Amino acid sequence: MQSNTNFHSLLCPDSIAVVGASRKPGKLGHLIVSNLIRAGYKGKLFPVNPAGGEILDLPVISAIKDLPTPPDMAIIALPRDKVIGAMKELAKADVSAICVITAGFRETGRDGFELEMAMADLARRKNITLLGPNSLGLINTHCNLNATIAQSIPQKGAIAFFSQSGALCSAILDWADGEHIGFSKFLSLGNKAGLSEADVLEALGDDPETKVIIGYLESVDDGEKFLRKARMVTEKKPVIMIKAGTTQSGARATSSHTGSMAGSVVASSAALRQAGIIQVHDLEALFDLARSFAEQPLPQGPNLTVVTNSGGPGILAADACEDAGLHLARPSQKTLEKLTEALPPFAAIYNPIDIIGDAKADRYRATLEAVAVDEFTNAILALLTPTASAEIEATAQAIIDVAEHCEKPIFACFMGGERIGPGRDMLIAAGIPCYAYPEPAVRAIEAMYAHYQWLNRPYPVEVCFRRDKGKGKQVIRKARKVGLKELPFSDAMDMALAYELPIPETRLVRTSDQAVRAAKKLGYPVALKIVSPHIANRGDVDGIALDLHTPREVRDAWLDITTRTQRKRPDAYLAGCLVQTMGPIKAREVIVRFTQDPQFGPLISFSLVGPSAEVLGDIAYRLAPLTLQDAQDIVREIKSFPLLRGARGEDPVSLAAIEDILLSMSQMATDFPEIQEAELNPILVDTEGAMVTDLRLTIG
Amino acid sequence: MQSNTNFHSLLCPDSIAVVGASRKPGKLGHLIVSNLIRAGYKGKLFPVNPAGGEILDLPVISAIKDLPTPPDMAIIALPRDKVIGAMKELAKADVSAICVITAGFRETGRDGFELEMAMADLARRKNITLLGPNSLGLINTHCNLNATIAQSIPQKGAIAFFSQSGALCSAILDWADGEHIGFSKFLSLGNKAGLSEADVLEALGDDPETKVIIGYLESVDDGEKFLRKARMVTEKKPVIMIKAGTTQSGARATSSHTGSMAGSVVASSAALRQAGIIQVHDLEALFDLARSFAEQPLPQGPNLTVVTNSGGPGILAADACEDAGLHLARPSQKTLEKLTEALPPFAAIYNPIDIIGDAKADRYRATLEAVAVDEFTNAILALLTPTASAEIEATAQAIIDVAEHCEKPIFACFMGGERIGPGRDMLIAAGIPCYAYPEPAVRAIEAMYAHYQWLNRPYPVEVCFRRDKGKGKQVIRKARKVGLKELPFSDAMDMALAYELPIPETRLVRTSDQAVRAAKKLGYPVALKIVSPHIANRGDVDGIALDLHTPREVRDAWLDITTRTQRKRPDAYLAGCLVQTMGPIKAREVIVRFTQDPQFGPLISFSLVGPSAEVLGDIAYRLAPLTLQDAQDIVREIKSFPLLRGARGEDPVSLAAIEDILLSMSQMATDFPEIQEAELNPILVDTEGAMVTDLRLTIG
Repeated sequence: MQSNTNFHSLLCPDSIAVVGASRKPGKLGHLIVSNLIRAGYKGKLFPVNPAGGEILDLPVISAIKDLPTPPDMAIIALPRDKVIGAMKELAKADVSAICVITAGFRETGRDGFELEMAMADLARRKNITLLGPNSLGLINTHCNLNATIAQSIPQKGAIAFFSQSGALCSAILDWADGEHIGFSKFLSLGNKAGLSEADVLEALGDDPETKVIIGYLESVDDGEKFLRKARMVTEKKPVIMIKAGTTQSGARATSSHTGSMAGSVVASSAALRQAGIIQVHDLEALFDLARSFAEQPLPQGPNLTVVTNSGGPGILAADACEDAGLHLARPSQKTLEKLTEALPPFAAIYNPIDIIGDAKADRYRATLEAVAVDEFTNAILALLTPTASAEIEATAQAIIDVAEHCEKPIFACFMGGERIGPGRDMLIAAGIPCYAYPEPAVRAIEAMYAHYQWLNRPYPVEVCFRRDKGKGKQVIRKARKVGLKELPFSDAMDMALAYELPIPETRLVRTSDQAVRAAKKLGYPVALKIVSPHIANRGDVDGIALDLHTPREVRDAWLDITTRTQRKRPDAYLAGCLVQTMGPIKAREVIVRFTQDPQFGPLISFSLVGPSAEVLGDIAYRLAPLTLQDAQDIVREIKSFPLLRGARGEDPVSLAAIEDILLSMSQMATDFPEIQEAELNPILVDTEGAMVTDLRLTIG
Repeated sequence: MQSNTNFHSLLCPDSIAVVGASRKPGKLGHLIVSNLIRAGYKGKLFPVNPAGGEILDLPVISAIKDLPTPPDMAIIALPRDKVIGAMKELAKADVSAICVITAGFRETGRDGFELEMAMADLARRKNITLLGPNSLGLINTHCNLNATIAQSIPQKGAIAFFSQSGALCSAILDWADGEHIGFSKFLSLGNKAGLSEADVLEALGDDPETKVIIGYLESVDDGEKFLRKARMVTEKKPVIMIKAGTTQSGARATSSHTGSMAGSVVASSAALRQAGIIQVHDLEALFDLARSFAEQPLPQGPNLTVVTNSGGPGILAADACEDAGLHLARPSQKTLEKLTEALPPFAAIYNPIDIIGDAKADRYRATLEAVAVDEFTNAILALLTPTASAEIEATAQAIIDVAEHCEKPIFACFMGGERIGPGRDMLIAAGIPCYAYPEPAVRAIEAMYAHYQWLNRPYPVEVCFRRDKGKGKQVIRKARKVGLKELPFSDAMDMALAYELPIPETRLVRTSDQAVRAAKKLGYPVALKIVSPHIANRGDVDGIALDLHTPREVRDAWLDITTRTQRKRPDAYLAGCLVQTMGPIKAREVIVRFTQDPQFGPLISFSLVGPSAEVLGDIAYRLAPLTLQDAQDIVREIKSFPLLRGARGEDPVSLAAIEDILLSMSQMATDFPEIQEAELNPILVDTEGAMVTDLRLTIG
């Protein structure tokens, strides 16, 4: 864990040593010095190179040990094999932070990997903040600091960007130049030997000059830490991220690129969502959203009002709106009256409000003023196409004027090229996001409303319920002792009892006489299930008989089950059968599972039993520990949820009962990281409650 | 139906009368004349205005009857109520084509609608090609014709654009200015009183100057005609369209905008697909694809090779690739050898080929040359980020040079802004699509490969099978006579027999004794189903008993069914029960339906029985008549298809049996438009074949 003091040395150093500075233009060691000077760095700057002399009028120090004062920060641009030596000397010189530009470490194979580990170790021992290696450098526009090998320097702004890909950084910087987009901080993480995405996220969360954080990630190193930090940051400011490697091909490319294994895609996607991070899937969306979040307030409801001078784009906006789950609310009666007065008779005064192709700026102004105070409007989108009558700059001015006194977010979409250009520039300069098409504008509003909902979600309830962790420990210890990976059913049942999972009353019996006696005690109807340490899935051997009503049926079932099992698995030792009280017969069947994700820890999943999950992939995921809200969300997130609510005239099932089970499993997963996998399948659930009729636990 | 001769008069007229020409700059009637002159129109030009005088040095004709020669084409920009009068005079003056710019017709209410009908009628009677009203006009760059009220004139090019929204036309023209994108034709359809989208599509299909057609549609007037024409056009050139109003909100906005009812979304989407039209969902994709289709050959396979100077964008491209169903194929051994020789040791020579951040143009050139002749590569994407070493213009030149001798499509993605600008401009000028992000580039390649597959689909097989249409007619006539909407089961069964649908042997019986006798004749096991003209859905009254094995079971079932039905529906007349042979018991259940779509005719759907269709919407649609290929596609298109193929260790079902039923239903729907709706539900299907165990037919 890096301290904040050191972060200050990295981002706003009083003095900088450039180790590997070069006199030759074109060399990275030259570019760094020239970028620092060009950006107007105010602190002390020490180029270091054994050749001595001068670089860009600065005297060159010939060795690290000759530095006149301990540098706050050092940038290293040396050949790979010299980096670790330089770091050692810098440590002696009492440096606080180091950024390593040099590449050729982990990403190139075993030798590089070991060198990188040594660097990381050194930094940790000497308490040096390490950025990189294989970093493009970093920028802090608010300190006139450009310590990168990029060619462009961004404008000052409120967006912080961090990226695991250096090349992407240079692309973004180049692109930002032409787009009037400003940045507060810019960090190229490189191989993340020292600073991880979680460290950087935390620092940017505390940075007063940053309003919005955007990031590009390929892998997450410590999922739990990332999640914990990110959760705190998203309370303070929006975080928008693109996670690369979300497909098999992408993951393969990631691992060949960074030398790190990509974690499970569902786990990382669950992590981002549970941390309140806005996940996007392409770069365009990343920057579209960054700008909108930086410049406009959040919509406080789902109602978007569209004002347009042409029907077609209005329809496209309406389509996008419904796809995004936003509403085109009908304006209030008062607004409608104002619009009727202000607009010509053929205008459409509902929503989209079509002020027709001959609209000049005054019509936009009157309409927007009415809509700005409309009680049913949470966000406004002003569309303009360059009709013959359109007054482009005056319309832009009208939008800017209305936005000044309006607490709702206002977005513009000016469609076209050269003619609308000046209007577009005015809007962007005034902080009004201006899109080229209606669809991305609507998607930005959708994301901002989702973030509003995230900030206003119910306060996470600490779930507190009785459990017997000691008993759980005993179960695990016992299994460990015998060396079993999968717990025997009776032990699994003990674990279930310890976590108060609703399980049917069960007896283990060894003869059919015992079975009949047990059934009598439990009360008919009962179920009979084969027990064998060699049979993981009873379904495979047809080892289950349900709904047995009489002693006769129990005896017949015993015979059937045991003969079938012996025929199918002559190698299996039959320990006997379980006799269980029957769960509800007309219930729905659902599954709750968890597995341990290598990056993010226990990943809980929920689905129905059957093809919706197996074939259509209708499964919802969350990382443990779950909040009550998480448990409620996960149940409602599957597309098949209407079936649980009773979509087809059936009775709804008890969602609370499922949520209880999810929370218990979350607790179990958190208490026992040694449980590698757990599956409750099936859980029978009806209006009254739920019953876990089978469960499997595997320990690692 | 408009003749091609008239189309020539509209698109390439020898003489033009501008009716409502005006001397005042800013008036539409002035803008039209000035646009015609500015674009360099070579034919005779007659401004018409009762005030006489001169407009832009042209003598003004004061009345239509005074025109010196019959004009090939006339453009009308008069107040609404004068339009029809002018059209009548123009008809007398023997005009061939008219474009009406004036708005305020159908879209404004009843009066306007009637005026528009009168115009359409006049045009039809006088054989005048009518574009509009409410049109922005039209452009033919290859005749120097700009007969629009738009402010910009596009460059010459190979893309034809037609649009139902005029405002969108002006936005596009303005945008195209800055994007170096050229057009061949540009048509604003307006209210489509005369020329419809189908007419225009056909004409553009025959236009030698057009390589790609793109269109924006809100409604389709004659679905069948559109489908027929579009099918022919897509054989000749790609057609890319955006259909607005694809959501409820969008459809509402459409109808308030155009005054036309939007047809069913699934039907229009099926129509576009069956016609081979590429449907896109936002404007950005429309133009991205237009440019790529216009400039590059189609990929002849799904294998994309990505060449990049940075890992991150390579991963994003790989993700996009898998999402798009394309493959990142491993290059051939020979290519790998060339790459090993040409690239530094840390380069990734598989795919994405990462030539690393210090790559200069020569490394791009060597890699692209190797990949251009690689036997496993069908398309190439060259990614560049502006690293410190990047040679942007030289790299653009390398791509251009390789593309010149390469028969495979080549796409570029230069990420950034100012620095990459010159490279981007070079590529675009050389006809190489250059994207700002990897994702849209991959989506363009996906669409082009899909079009390649469309062109190379198996030749549509004319399906020929025995049917007894006469018998079908009798059934319909009988139902009509009695005034029934829903056919009685026995008649529906007759219809099914006429179309050789596989139905179980069935007897209608009126007593339980008869039922037992029928069961004996048919052979056990049997099913028993209630029959009542008042009960549409037997499931509602539990009026079905299956798998009856003995006379006793039949009698019991008879009692059960009839009592239950009488209790639940005391108003219903019970005509008796059906006794049926049982279909396969362990079969899958599927549904085939059709309904008559008001715009596109019979729309056939296919799904499984159960929640996958009802709750998750997993239903596939096609318009009748189906080809054999359509029938095969529709079965495979549902996401649940793996269940039919036997995903979970079950036996696969007979797909051919389902396809036969689909084709029979397609024939029935085509033969009898008076059948409003038909539903075969459920159809039992197993490995051997299928059986339709219940069906309902409703006539209009």
